[in-house]
Amino acid sequence: MAKIGVMIDNFFEDVEYTRPVKAFKDAGHQITNLGIKKGRVKGKKGTATVEIDERIRDSDYNSFDAIFIPGGYSPDNLRGHREAVEFIRNFFHTDKPVFAICHGPQLLITAQLIEGRKVTGWRSIVQDIKNAGAEFRDQEVVEDGNLVTSRQPSDIPAFIEVCLKKLE
Amino acid sequence: MAKIGVMIDNFFEDVEYTRPVKAFKDAGHQITNLGIKKGRVKGKKGTATVEIDERIRDSDYNSFDAIFIPGGYSPDNLRGHREAVEFIRNFFHTDKPVFAICHGPQLLITAQLIEGRKVTGWRSIVQDIKNAGAEFRDQEVVEDGNLVTSRQPSDIPAFIEVCLKKLE
Repeated sequence: MAKIGVMIDNFFEDVEYTRPVKAFKDAGHQITNLGIKKGRVKGKKGTATVEIDERIRDSDYNSFDAIFIPGGYSPDNLRGHREAVEFIRNFFHTDKPVFAICHGPQLLITAQLIEGRKVTGWRSIVQDIKNAGAEFRDQEVVEDGNLVTSRQPSDIPAFIEVCLKKLE
Repeated sequence: MAKIGVMIDNFFEDVEYTRPVKAFKDAGHQITNLGIKKGRVKGKKGTATVEIDERIRDSDYNSFDAIFIPGGYSPDNLRGHREAVEFIRNFFHTDKPVFAICHGPQLLITAQLIEGRKVTGWRSIVQDIKNAGAEFRDQEVVEDGNLVTSRQPSDIPAFIEVCLKKLE
C-alpha cells in the first residue's frame, strides 16, 4: 500500500480533499497531511477541516510514494512558501506519481515542472498553464507520465480512478 | 474628477480594497464597484463587504477613466468569467490607467495584456508574471505606461501615491 503525502493549506476546495482522500484510504493507502505549519487548515466552503501531520520543512520527500495536491486557494497559498516549492520539485524529479486537481497545477507552475507536459486544471488557470509551456487539455482527467491532473469537483470520480491505477 | 471602476469578487484582500478606495474618494474621485452579479461580496479577512453597483456584463468600459483591481482571491474568481476578461482587455486597450495590486495581475495575465510590460505582484504569482512574458520587478510600486502594479498590503501607501498622480 502506498504512502501518500497531501500538500494542503487554508481555503482548499473541501470535496477535492475529502473525496479523493476517502477513496485512497478505502483502497488501503496511508495519508499524511503536509502543511506550512502544524495545526488545522480549513476548506473554503467551511465543510472540512484538516489536521496537519507534518510540516513540509521537516518532511522527507523520499518517504512518500505519491503526492496529492487538492485545489481551491490552497495551492496558491502553498506556492508562496519556498519549502513547498522545493519539496514538490524534489519529489516530482523522482518520477513517482503526482496528483493535482483544480488549482493544484499552480504549485507545479511555480516549481517550473510542467513545460512540455499535457496538463489540465481549473478554468481560471488555463492561461497560466499554457504560459508555463504545457499543453492544456480540456478533459476530466489527463495522464502524462507520473502526472495526473483534473479540472474541477465534477471530475473527481474519473480523477480517483486514474490515481488509484497509478498506485497499483 | 475621475470615474474609477473597481473589479471585485469574493475573498478580496480587505485592506487592498478599503484603503485605496478611501484615498480615491478623499481625492474627489467617483467609485463604481463592478462584479459578476449584483449583491454583496466579502473580503477574505471578513472585515470588509462591498456592494456591487454594476454587473460587468452590463457595464460600458468606455464610461470609466481608470480601472482598479484589488488583490486576494478576487482576481482569480473574476478571470474565471469571460465577461471580466473581455472587459479588462477592452479597457486596457484604451490606454487609460489600470491599477492592480497583489493578485490583481492574474486578471491581466488571463487577458494576455502584460507581455513585454514591467509588472510586480504578490510573491505567489511571480512565476506566472514571468511566464506571461512580463518583466517582473520586486518593488513596492511599478509604473509602466498606463499600468500601475504593487505587491502587497505594505505597498499600499506607495501604490496610492502613484495611482493618484495618474489621475491628475
